[in-house]
Amino acid sequence: MLRKSISIVLSLGFWAVGTAQAQENIGGNKTVVQSPVVHEDNAVTIRLAAKTQGEVYVIGNWMSGGKEKMLRDSLGLYYTTPSLSSDLYMYNLEMDGVVVNDPLNVYIVRDVANTFNYFLTKGAQADFYQIQDVPHGTVAKRWYDSPTLGMTRRMTVYTPAGYEQSEKALPVLYLLHGMGGDEEAWATLGRATQILDNMIAQGKVKPMIVVMPNGHVSNAAAPGESAKGQYPINFFTPDVGSGKMEESFMDIVQFVESNYRVKKEKSTRAIAGLSMGGSHTLFTSAYLNNHFDYVGLFSAAFRMNDKVQSPVFSNFEQNLAKQRDNGYKLYWIGMGKEDFLYKVGEDYRKRLDAIGMKYTYRESEGGHTWSNWRLYLTEFLPLLF
Amino acid sequence: MLRKSISIVLSLGFWAVGTAQAQENIGGNKTVVQSPVVHEDNAVTIRLAAKTQGEVYVIGNWMSGGKEKMLRDSLGLYYTTPSLSSDLYMYNLEMDGVVVNDPLNVYIVRDVANTFNYFLTKGAQADFYQIQDVPHGTVAKRWYDSPTLGMTRRMTVYTPAGYEQSEKALPVLYLLHGMGGDEEAWATLGRATQILDNMIAQGKVKPMIVVMPNGHVSNAAAPGESAKGQYPINFFTPDVGSGKMEESFMDIVQFVESNYRVKKEKSTRAIAGLSMGGSHTLFTSAYLNNHFDYVGLFSAAFRMNDKVQSPVFSNFEQNLAKQRDNGYKLYWIGMGKEDFLYKVGEDYRKRLDAIGMKYTYRESEGGHTWSNWRLYLTEFLPLLF
Repeated sequence: MLRKSISIVLSLGFWAVGTAQAQENIGGNKTVVQSPVVHEDNAVTIRLAAKTQGEVYVIGNWMSGGKEKMLRDSLGLYYTTPSLSSDLYMYNLEMDGVVVNDPLNVYIVRDVANTFNYFLTKGAQADFYQIQDVPHGTVAKRWYDSPTLGMTRRMTVYTPAGYEQSEKALPVLYLLHGMGGDEEAWATLGRATQILDNMIAQGKVKPMIVVMPNGHVSNAAAPGESAKGQYPINFFTPDVGSGKMEESFMDIVQFVESNYRVKKEKSTRAIAGLSMGGSHTLFTSAYLNNHFDYVGLFSAAFRMNDKVQSPVFSNFEQNLAKQRDNGYKLYWIGMGKEDFLYKVGEDYRKRLDAIGMKYTYRESEGGHTWSNWRLYLTEFLPLLF
Repeated sequence: MLRKSISIVLSLGFWAVGTAQAQENIGGNKTVVQSPVVHEDNAVTIRLAAKTQGEVYVIGNWMSGGKEKMLRDSLGLYYTTPSLSSDLYMYNLEMDGVVVNDPLNVYIVRDVANTFNYFLTKGAQADFYQIQDVPHGTVAKRWYDSPTLGMTRRMTVYTPAGYEQSEKALPVLYLLHGMGGDEEAWATLGRATQILDNMIAQGKVKPMIVVMPNGHVSNAAAPGESAKGQYPINFFTPDVGSGKMEESFMDIVQFVESNYRVKKEKSTRAIAGLSMGGSHTLFTSAYLNNHFDYVGLFSAAFRMNDKVQSPVFSNFEQNLAKQRDNGYKLYWIGMGKEDFLYKVGEDYRKRLDAIGMKYTYRESEGGHTWSNWRLYLTEFLPLLF
């Protein structure tokens, strides 16, 4: 029961919990130190309130690789970042060779098979990602039947503030995750629901429903959210590049259009995705080549599995030409200069050029990162509907 | 790029990520070891795939306090629990005096101001908590206006499978969290949505809507989910025992009854809560003394703030007598033998006895724990409606 009268006193456990088993849901964090603290200049201090014997390092995605050693002061260990740009950042600590979480930061996200602590800095871009005092949409985890796959599957559905009280039918954006993701990724790492709330409130984005399905057709839901239970996450699943997501995509559209008050026209349907989800977007919008007026490829992969036969791939050239001829309002491509898929994107743009298929190209700094995908979403959304 | 042909090979990072900043959403966990592994006899092995210098301990809520040292083998460190009963368990590791997560287990829950890894063992009780291959309800995070508080606040709403397709009006359970919780607690630590899905599918529980509001009227939403942003969690908030949750409860009922297809009768309304939420349940059901036919007090506190004047408290005796006289179908009280609120509960039962107010009393083993609250929920739900 230690209390220090210093400015960083913020959280204190009042009720000593004698045994973990006997009493729960009481008491706070047994520390008086806060971590992280975002300073006015967007430098961020991470703290560990402990008298450790060994060195502790911070591994953060603002670093260009490597790790930084924490320093010691009277409160324990600390590390301060340089002044960071306006964004969401992820980090871990490394103790004794083991990568762990920051025990003072309860805000955790999973990316693929690892969990990270995160924080947001200040400034214009992160203001889209922060939860602001604006009307908030509803975020639902909902299960739908996919007759094509013979499965019941989970999706995240964002309906904007006022949807339930209105009688107005809304347009729909289908927003697809990457290979390491699932139906939770855009709502967690992607901050999609905050971006929508904020940009709709500012009048920059039209009210829309955003449907975030699970792009791994071999899974019913995110890890831990299906009858598979809790399992170690395997990055590669046999469904990747199988064409099955694209072949079954109309199941999702039909579910949404028969269960939500939405407009059911090409001009009110958009589809976008990142990485593997960019590949899904690319092939789905060509396969269903008269269904989407708005298409967004964020750091898109171009992935086919040679071992499968799918009309999604075998008729791709013809479908793409049909998509071109049927017309559309926006074919938006975003790619980072350091993205490992940069060449894949360049080759794909050449293919589009060769058949005279128009697109909008946005090249950003950085690589294959959520920082870019959040940025692309904030640039893509105002162009819709 | 190490691959071991042993049975615990389960997860392997394929794409080396040179810098954390350059590429994300690719690659898996850079390990070939799984943790935790639940064995057939419900012993559980926790592993750390590292050559640490120092000792590492496991702190788990199956222990009666203290911590257990991990042992070494060729894969790193390990610890195996005794055979555990059928339940959900939480644990952490302790390295160099610091309590951290298990880096191989991505399944994490927050309880008050700390995060824990968790796992489920096998058996009848945990089968209610597992996600089974049954129809799943929708779980929505939704914002509602509270005119009494002058706030927009967040709640979790469970609607059972088939709700959207049906025209049948459903009964409603209002399910309240404890002092360290928020609108997410019952759906995460409480496994309420899994319990509902499973027990409804088995025909043991009637389809119902379950509304899980935030019981801290000084917060709009859970930590990190309101415009307050990410803040260190303070266990004690000024709203506790203020009567404001009870005074504003009709805002929640009215929102639900005008936004969901529900029955609006006393006989189709239930209210239950744990700890502080048990106190909210007790006072709310007396304050609104002709509104709820089903009342559940799980390890209930009896909390008034002496510094506030509230009709919830000042008229409590009369309101409780009215609740008795108005009649109800079930007044269910659950308490663990080792609960730190045991005496509080005993005193409250004496008070009920003194005025001839009938109740059903369930005394369980154990203390003030989520293990008991999940158990109570599985026993309480079949008695409703």
